[in-house]
Amino acid sequence: MTEITTGADVVTLINVFTVAPERQQELLDLLDRATEEVMRHRPGFVSANLHASLDGGHVANYAQWESEAAFQAMLADPECREHMSAATAMADAVPVLYRVSSTHNR
Amino acid sequence: MTEITTGADVVTLINVFTVAPERQQELLDLLDRATEEVMRHRPGFVSANLHASLDGGHVANYAQWESEAAFQAMLADPECREHMSAATAMADAVPVLYRVSSTHNR
Repeated sequence: MTEITTGADVVTLINVFTVAPERQQELLDLLDRATEEVMRHRPGFVSANLHASLDGGHVANYAQWESEAAFQAMLADPECREHMSAATAMADAVPVLYRVSSTHNR
Repeated sequence: MTEITTGADVVTLINVFTVAPERQQELLDLLDRATEEVMRHRPGFVSANLHASLDGGHVANYAQWESEAAFQAMLADPECREHMSAATAMADAVPVLYRVSSTHNR
């Protein structure tokens, strides 16, 4: 299970896709398969969590990798690139790498 | 600690800010204070997690609320609006509400 904490030894990818609502489920299915069959087996993968926007127009992936280098190596992998091209053919993607800065709880 | 699971009884806000790198820390500080002093005490708040992009140009908030209604009530609260206005005066914000669709682990 993905846990969000400061000081964890991971980098966080937040990738927000903008998609036509009628294709949201198709994009979720594609990202599910790509994650399960390909990305999950790449060195340094920790977790990925797919989110469906309530308005139908977005999909977000909240993912953790062991390092920025591991994430960049995945991006350069031809099999991964093929899956990402299929996703970006149906949606605009804004992938950004982060560190957790602070956490607040009720 | 924030945990990401399917079926949890929360809605997820992912708010991605685009900010000038020289103001990233200022934005993080403002959001930290607003979350700790105001948002955290509103009904239905579960958690908020501030993220700093490695490239300096973004800040992301991954937050959980008990319901969409609780989140909308917070948005309508004048004290909360004042804090959000201060944030959006220094950065473009794209706030989107999500449900967790699927999770994948190594």
